[in-house]
Order: sequence, then structure tokens, then C-alpha cells
Amino acid sequence: MTSDSEPRYIAAIDLGSNSFHMVVARVVGQDLQLISRHKQRVRLASGLDAQNNLDNAAIERGLECLAMFAERLQGFDEENVRIAATHTLRQASNAHLFIQRAQQVLPFAIEIIPGVEEGRLIYSGVAHTQPESDSKLVIDIGGGSTEIVIGQGFEAELVNSKQMGCVSYTNRFFANEKLSKKNFAKASLAAEQKLESLAHQYRKHGWDIAFGSSGTAKAIRDVLIGLGHEDGQITAKRLEELIDTLCKWSTIEEIELDGLTPERKPVFAAGVAILQAIFSSLKIDTLHFSEGALREGLLYEMEDRFKRTDIRMRTTESLANKHFVDLDHAAKIKGQASEFFEQIHKKIGISKKNQLSDLLQWSALLHEVGLSISLQAFHRHSAYILQHTTMPGFNREQQRVLAMLVRFQRKSLKLKEMDDFSLYKKKDIINLIRILRLAILLNGQRNDDPLPPLKLKVDGDQWTLTSTDENWLENNKLLNADLQTEQEYWRNVEWTLKF
Amino acid sequence: MTSDSEPRYIAAIDLGSNSFHMVVARVVGQDLQLISRHKQRVRLASGLDAQNNLDNAAIERGLECLAMFAERLQGFDEENVRIAATHTLRQASNAHLFIQRAQQVLPFAIEIIPGVEEGRLIYSGVAHTQPESDSKLVIDIGGGSTEIVIGQGFEAELVNSKQMGCVSYTNRFFANEKLSKKNFAKASLAAEQKLESLAHQYRKHGWDIAFGSSGTAKAIRDVLIGLGHEDGQITAKRLEELIDTLCKWSTIEEIELDGLTPERKPVFAAGVAILQAIFSSLKIDTLHFSEGALREGLLYEMEDRFKRTDIRMRTTESLANKHFVDLDHAAKIKGQASEFFEQIHKKIGISKKNQLSDLLQWSALLHEVGLSISLQAFHRHSAYILQHTTMPGFNREQQRVLAMLVRFQRKSLKLKEMDDFSLYKKKDIINLIRILRLAILLNGQRNDDPLPPLKLKVDGDQWTLTSTDENWLENNKLLNADLQTEQEYWRNVEWTLKF
Repeated sequence: MTSDSEPRYIAAIDLGSNSFHMVVARVVGQDLQLISRHKQRVRLASGLDAQNNLDNAAIERGLECLAMFAERLQGFDEENVRIAATHTLRQASNAHLFIQRAQQVLPFAIEIIPGVEEGRLIYSGVAHTQPESDSKLVIDIGGGSTEIVIGQGFEAELVNSKQMGCVSYTNRFFANEKLSKKNFAKASLAAEQKLESLAHQYRKHGWDIAFGSSGTAKAIRDVLIGLGHEDGQITAKRLEELIDTLCKWSTIEEIELDGLTPERKPVFAAGVAILQAIFSSLKIDTLHFSEGALREGLLYEMEDRFKRTDIRMRTTESLANKHFVDLDHAAKIKGQASEFFEQIHKKIGISKKNQLSDLLQWSALLHEVGLSISLQAFHRHSAYILQHTTMPGFNREQQRVLAMLVRFQRKSLKLKEMDDFSLYKKKDIINLIRILRLAILLNGQRNDDPLPPLKLKVDGDQWTLTSTDENWLENNKLLNADLQTEQEYWRNVEWTLKF
Repeated sequence: MTSDSEPRYIAAIDLGSNSFHMVVARVVGQDLQLISRHKQRVRLASGLDAQNNLDNAAIERGLECLAMFAERLQGFDEENVRIAATHTLRQASNAHLFIQRAQQVLPFAIEIIPGVEEGRLIYSGVAHTQPESDSKLVIDIGGGSTEIVIGQGFEAELVNSKQMGCVSYTNRFFANEKLSKKNFAKASLAAEQKLESLAHQYRKHGWDIAFGSSGTAKAIRDVLIGLGHEDGQITAKRLEELIDTLCKWSTIEEIELDGLTPERKPVFAAGVAILQAIFSSLKIDTLHFSEGALREGLLYEMEDRFKRTDIRMRTTESLANKHFVDLDHAAKIKGQASEFFEQIHKKIGISKKNQLSDLLQWSALLHEVGLSISLQAFHRHSAYILQHTTMPGFNREQQRVLAMLVRFQRKSLKLKEMDDFSLYKKKDIINLIRILRLAILLNGQRNDDPLPPLKLKVDGDQWTLTSTDENWLENNKLLNADLQTEQEYWRNVEWTLKF
């Protein structure tokens, strides 16, 4: 990171419902210099059938694009590439298949991120591109989802993601290709219904300047310029006029507007209708287009993580506080788990740089969040919260890993209830579960009596806990009994614990 | 409640794992005068098979006892009787069958209460019986569960219920009827493991005076008196000596001790072992026996509710605060729901005095608690919280009613996911869901524009919403669209909504 180190290149890929985008940047001092952008229209969303299965043709189109990106990324380190998938892969029931096949083409982790996480990253991308004003409203109308965010500086404050987009609304309201005032009104009203629950809160919060990002906003800006509005600003009046203009043609096919690409044309009208609804719900005056978007957000965050200001650490801390976690105890568990991980990480084949090492520590800090619901079965409540709550910086699978670790922190190991993972190996998760359980068990008495130095040895499914103090369990009958109970839990799933 | 009103009698029944108890009292001014106590040993727990089904013989024993109680309660109003079932009926998979049959014998609601709720009520029973000291530790070792509570004045502060009791521990550690130091040590160690997670917290909190309630503590007190300790106080040393004494006999059968009834004898040793473990975990000096217990707690709480200081209102408010509920909005929904209930309660056949009327209002106040987890699918998170969190004053079924009301507050009506109820009719719950949905929908825009006066008319599954202002929907296209969407949801489950 110092100026005399080798130049570092980072890349971010966004697997959208309509297009895949890649952006590559060079780290220059404290800043990023964008080197190249790549875009390919993959139309993933159009490959979803009624059962939300992605068809083969769409998968092939996606893989072809990723293979192309892979060439550009040859020689990149794993930690310098981040790939995020959004709405269509959130929806697809066979997303794991797509990801499995993609990994053969492109050897970097593909993360499916939640809608609110997408919103947060988009905001960050816009905020880094337009740092001038303090408080921003950012609107990103995608193919399947629309993100609406208000933030201050680089921090998103209100984040929502709604399931409406220019592809899905085209299918719902312009399926007959007909352009009419009535179709526009219906589409806008449906979008306003979607926005109803948040509109009041957003209006109350307010903002200094509003930005639109990504394809829909860009196309509308370009068309407005084509119509003579050279500043390219989007206003309510101009949107209304644009709808009037569009209604002069009777079908979408016939539209001919300067600035409108053939690729954008099929979904343009629906995008305009949704944006009009947002203008009316939030009472927006003027919207500016911003070049920054999800992929820029991914880039800047990668750079932040490198600088050790990982937002996920902040998320973990704020969640622990919100749920009144006993922080001293949690820190003790984290310390014990880290020590065991240090001892055995080579043996279990998980590098210290691997994300799993962080996830283990965060799970230790958060294992008791479920106590805020109730003591009884609190490990299940902890898992429910970590799976469902909004956790800035985490992708869906990381949330599920945290949920699984805390789910299995104690009591019997009903491993049938364990999820499958795409980014991580089940074997690794199981090893982390073992570490976390032992760390928690050894500190079960919650007193300040120090434990003797402990050594963990791993031989496949057989783990052995020893101490330099041979009599360490003589003086602690309760811990001895707890270890025996744990031994029994392990035996029931054919693992072995010796001590 | 004034002195010139007719005398009021109230009764509480406790359906325990070992015995059923009834206590009847007269309300005298601000106080209760206990009139009579009834006890019958029903041994419900012994009727549970390996699949947790209650066998017929146990059910019959229970019904016979309830029939006897019913005679005593002839002429009592519903609001003057409260019946709580504890551990065995919490465990029994066919508890609903028992309750259905019981209702034919005894026409009062039987509530299955959670373990922590049991603990809270026991504390209240003891605190009203021994009001002298401020801060109390209360221990109640039952047949299947043990409640451990610390409180201040009449308020429980730390409440835990652990699944260990003198019946289950007899089966686990004294199944061979053998009395030996080894069996006692094993039983005590197992109990200490159960207590491990709470011991530190309890010791840290501290208390002024410790009480034991119910059969186990009473039997130990009586035996100690029989052994010459006339003050009847239980101490660690006396418990140790008692175990030594018990080990002089080789089997439980042979025990002969002054003060020990034949009924208590089979489970006495296990009770002593559990109490010893509690003494050692919490570092108790001396334990006193208190006559107050669960049934007294039920009685005093009934009297409190009558005085309109219902603890459930406090629980609702504190839960809403803990989850950062928008209280203004919640109050608006509550007001609207109450108004609709007022309009139609006769038509739908729910009396204003019925608990359901309160549950509707509380669900309105709590419908958004799930937002603290995430906006997406928050109605499901609200339901999860209300079903699982500790809610002082509510029985299990009331928590499930609240959970169902908020679960179905919005979106499609997947009624297959609806629970069955014993205390309440599904038809009534559905009517409340309809009221709550309409109240929420009508205030969906969260603005301060007042709604016109609205009138709800009910004709079976067909509900009609009208206003004196005929054009009320002309000016509000969004509300009109929301009502149409709602109409569609209703149509999908064969209900009709007109407006």
C-alpha cells in the first residue's frame, strides 16, 4: 500500500438480470484509477421459467460472458476480485448449478448478495463517484429489482430494495407491446403501491441531491438529451412529456428516439413508468445520472477491506450491541476460538487469509444474539436472526454460514438441518463448528478462573484436547462432565472427542 | 370492588406433573382471604410414553380430579377462575386431546403456560405470601421442571425454568431404586450442568432471602424437622447429612423417615439431589419453605387484572419499545382495529370482555416488531418473535394467537400455515385477522391525512367497507389500488371484500 510497493490491480464483476459488467482499477495511493469497463448483455432474467428455474440457454450465455471476463483476469489474486450476483440469481432455484459451473470457468468466488446489500453497495459506488454533496438519494432501477437509498457522505442510511424492475414490469404491463396512457398509469400505480410503505419515511428524512444509476436512468438521460434537454436532468415534467411522446407510437417496436439503443428499447417504457412512480411517491424535483453503480461500490469496498476497515466488523459490533450481547464473554469465546484456529488451521486446511477465519470470529462475537428473544433454544434464535437480519457487508451465504455456526454451537448435532453451501465446503464449516463448540464449552462456567494452556490435536474426525497440566480436569468436575456430554454428542454423529 | 359490592370469589387451579391443586379465595377489600385448598395426586407425568403421548389411564385420573373441582366451582364466572397447566402438558404431544375432554367436565379455559411464565407466577405467589423482605430467591422443584427466580418486591427479575424435576431424575438416576453416594453424586452433577449457564448471573445478582416452594421443598423441610431440626431451615450441611442418612438404606422402598409421606417417598431422593446441586451452584446458605406457589401467583394476578393493572399491557409496551416500534403508527392501527371491532363484535360473536378483544389490540401494537430484524418479510419475523420471546403474563396459546395475527397482517393468505388452537376458535382468529389487515391497509400511507368515517358490515365471509363520503376513494387512487389488491388476496381464499 505504500508508494514503493508493486502496483495493485483490483476487479469487480456484477452479474445483473440484464447485463454482466466488469470494471478493473489500479490502486493509486489512497485512490482508485479506473482502467477498463466491460459490459455484456446476457439477459439472464429472460431465462427464468415459471418455477424460477434458469434455463440452459441463459446459463450458457452467462458462462460465455464469464469466460471472456476470465481471460482479462488471468494472474489476479483471489483477494483482488469480487463478484456479486443480484436479483435473477437471488430468485433462481437452481442458482447453485449456475455458480458451480461458473466456478469452472472463473476461479473466483461468486456471491449472491441480498437486495439491501445491493442498495448499500450502489450507494457507495455513487457516493465515491459524486462525493460533492453530503446527503444523497440514489435510485437504481434494474431488470428485476429497484434499490432506493438515502445516505450521508459514504454511508447508506435508509436502504430498501423492491421487487420491481424494467424487465418484470414490461412483462406485466406492456406484454402486448401496446403503448397507452392506460398501461403507463397501471404500471405507475403498481409501483406506487410497492413504494407506499417507505415513501413517508424517505420524504421525512429528505436529501440534498438525487441520483439515478445504471441502465434505466442512463437511457432516460440519453433520450432526454436527444429530445433537446441538453443538461440531461430528469424532472417530473420531462418524464410526463416523455410518456406523452412514447404514447404517440402504438407499440414498443415502433419507438424511434435519439439516444435509445435497440437493446434498451424493449424495456424502456416500463423503466420510465417505474421512475415516474418513484418521482411521485418521494416528491423528487430533479434526478441526475451518476456513472457510479454496484460494481464501483464493490471496488471501493474491496479497497476498504484491504485497508482493514472492514464494514463487516462494524456490522458485527453494532448487531451485538443491539441485542445486548455480553461483550466480555463473547470476546473470551472469540479469543479461545482464535487460539484453537491458530493451532490447527494448517491441519484442517483453512488458510488464515480465508474468509472463514473471520466468519469464525464473528460467529463467536454473535453466538448469543438469540438470548434477546429467549434463553430457551437461544441457539436457534441466534441462527434465525443472523440468517434474516440486515447485515451490511455480508453476502447471503456468509450470513448462512454464521447462522449455521451459531445454530450448532451447543446441544445435539442434528446435522441434517445443515444447509448446503456454494462458496464454502461443508467439511470446513464442520471444523469451525467443532472449534466454536469447544471454545464455548470450556468457558461455560462464565467465571474468571483461568483455564490451563490447552492444545488441540486433529486427526480427521478425531480431535484431542490436552493440557500441560495433567490434572486440569481433576479440579473441575463440572467441566469434566460437560466434556463427557459433548463427547456423547460427537459420538452420535460419528466424530470422536478425546481429552 | 368497593366494600358494599357483593363478595367476590376467585379460584386458581394448577395442573402439575405430580398433583393437581385448587385454591379458592374471597376478595376482601384490597386483599385476598384464602378459603380452601384442594389437592389430588394425579401422577400425570407417569402417563407419558416414549413418544410423549399421555396414556388413557393418566387422562382419566386427571379428568376425575377436574370433575371433583368442577363441583366446587359451580356458579363461578369465567373471569373468576384461572387454570394453568405446566411441564407434563407442555411436553405431551396429545395435550390438546386432554384439554378438549377436560373442557367437557370443567367449563373454564385451561392454559398451558411456558416454563418462565410458571417461574414468574411462582415468584408472585411466594412474594405475596412472604412480603417481608425485599429481594428474594425462589426455587420450585417440580416433577418435570425446576423454576429458579430472583425478584424484588412483587416483581420477578431473573427467571429460568430448567427441564429437570424429581420425577424425571428418579427415572434417570434412581431407576434401580438403589440409594448410594454414587447415584446422588451423579444426579447432582447432572443438575449442576443444567445450572451452569445461569449460576454466574444469579450469584452476581444476589438476594436477601431464599425460599423453596411446593412439594419437594416442603417434604425436605418436614423431614428435617422430623430429624430434630425444629426451625425447619434447609442448609447445605443439613442436606449433606440428609444424604448420608438416606444412604443408610439400600433402596428407596426401605426409607423410613418422620415427616415423609408414602406419596412423596418414591421421588424424595432425586429432589434432595437436585436441591443440593442448586445449593452448590448458587452458593445458598439457608433456604426457607414458603406456602406460596404457582396457584397463589395465579390468584393474585387474577385480582390484579380485575384491578386493570394487567401485566400483559406492560409486557406489550416493553416489547414494542425493545424492538423500536413506531408507537404513533401502532396506536393508530390499534385505534382503527378497535373501532372496527366495536362495530362488528356482536355480528361476529366475540364479546368485548373476551380475551380476544385484548389480543387484537396488542397485536396491533406489536405487528411491526419484526422490522427490527428486517423489512423483507417482516410479518414473518414479527410472528417468530411473538411466538418465541418471553412474554410475562401470556400463556403459550395467547402468544401463538398474537403470532398468527401478525403473521397474516399482510400479503397473501397462506392459511395452511395457520395453527390449531384449543382455547380459541379458528373462525374467531380469522375474523380478527380480517380486522387487523383492514386497519393496517387503510393506514398504509402513514401520513396524517384523516380517513373519512368508515363503516364495516359483515355477512359471513363477505365483508363490506363503506363511507358516508361516497367519493372517498376517488381522491385516493393508491388506497383504491391497495383495496383491490386486498380484494384479490381475499378472493384467493374464498372470502369476499367489497368497498
